Amino acid sequence: MKLGKVIGRVVSTRKIESFEGIKLLLVQPVDENLLPYGDPIVAADTIQSGVGQLIYYETSKEAGRVLPYTMNPLDAAIMGIVDNLNIEEKQ
Amino acid sequence: MKLGKVIGRVVSTRKIESFEGIKLLLVQPVDENLLPYGDPIVAADTIQSGVGQLIYYETSKEAGRVLPYTMNPLDAAIMGIVDNLNIEEKQ
Amino acid sequence: MKLGKVIGRVVSTRKIESFEGIKLLLVQPVDENLLPYGDPIVAADTIQSGVGQLIYYETSKEAGRVLPYTMNPLDAAIMGIVDNLNIEEKQ
Amino acid sequence: MKLGKVIGRVVSTRKIESFEGIKLLLVQPVDENLLPYGDPIVAADTIQSGVGQLIYYETSKEAGRVLPYTMNPLDAAIMGIVDNLNIEEKQ
Amino acid sequence: MKLGKVIGRVVSTRKIESFEGIKLLLVQPVDENLLPYGDPIVAADTIQSGVGQLIYYETSKEAGRVLPYTMNPLDAAIMGIVDNLNIEEKQ
Repeated sequence: MKLGKVIGRVVSTRKIESFEGIKLLLVQPVDENLLPYGDPIVAADTIQSGVGQLIYYETSKEAGRVLPYTMNPLDAAIMGIVDNLNIEEKQ
Repeated sequence: MKLGKVIGRVVSTRKIESFEGIKLLLVQPVDENLLPYGDPIVAADTIQSGVGQLIYYETSKEAGRVLPYTMNPLDAAIMGIVDNLNIEEKQ
Repeated sequence: MKLGKVIGRVVSTRKIESFEGIKLLLVQPVDENLLPYGDPIVAADTIQSGVGQLIYYETSKEAGRVLPYTMNPLDAAIMGIVDNLNIEEKQ
Repeated sequence: MKLGKVIGRVVSTRKIESFEGIKLLLVQPVDENLLPYGDPIVAADTIQSGVGQLIYYETSKEAGRVLPYTMNPLDAAIMGIVDNLNIEEKQ
Repeated sequence: MKLGKVIGRVVSTRKIESFEGIKLLLVQPVDENLLPYGDPIVAADTIQSGVGQLIYYETSKEAGRVLPYTMNPLDAAIMGIVDNLNIEEKQ
């Protein structure tokens, strides 16, 4: 999983049928200092994440298992919201 | 999933048998400001995407599930067309 | 999938048993202008691709499904030969 | 798998249900000289890894198989702790 | 698959149970001119590869299928040893 920050929403009417009703958020990957890197991804959200929150997300096929219909072809999902990062050592 | 823009079509006669009849588009990844990054990918399209449209796509094995024969060895597919990106915060 | 150009062959005698008889090619990723980027990959070929041809290939686990024994642990395969790229728009 | 160093913990209360009770660590990828590269990942730990330890981890869907409930949508896990790296040759 | 050169061994006592008895090697990715790029990976070896050899390896979930217990959560394995690379064309 990777750390990310929710930066917006994706509004999409025409899409594959099994994506109906799924909330899609735009997530900016961030490092352990919460600095952005790379390009944003589009992830499904099932835990009521909001814009501005620090979250961790997956981008593998397992992401689809967070949905009610687990065979949904989804490859990115928010897994949890970060309360705190306890960084103890940075080589 | 990632954001991308459809930039062209891939015409291919000789291919694996299960790809017969599948529409293949060339997609340029773009960031939240619609600026291109990285190199284009070849994705299957099942939602009648057109050149110039902003879409979101997958590049994992789940992509194959958008096809009628879901065991098709496909690893990239367009999932939906973006109506609007509501960017609220960019760290 | 990605665009690539076949640049050579990989000759390998000692290998995992299920790879016996599988033709392995060296493929250089190329962009929409056929310019190389990144590093070459080793892909299985089942459609009689030849050196110098423009092809599209997969690098996910689905690649193994192009082989007769679909449970073969293969992660890269040539899917088709490109006749033509119709680039209409490049952002 | 990749080499990494455990640099911290991720505290998360709101998360997908199947992640309850799973210990999440922040891992910095390192090379063969233990120098950091890239950005840290969030990995599940089932072998009592501690901060500062050199470990190897996976970031594929197989990672979930280290958990009691193997269908858990996990894509990153610590697989083992490195006692020693015997580097014999670096091209 | 990718080309790589075996540069060392990984000694690991504490690890997930299903990794007992599996030989782990450190592999440096190399390009078609055998020049190194990127960072080394940790791969399982089942074909008696040795340090200094040019090999090709996988880093997808299919890698686990080279092991006796194919459900082993392994994501990187050496697939074969390269006898010869016949590079005919480099764009």
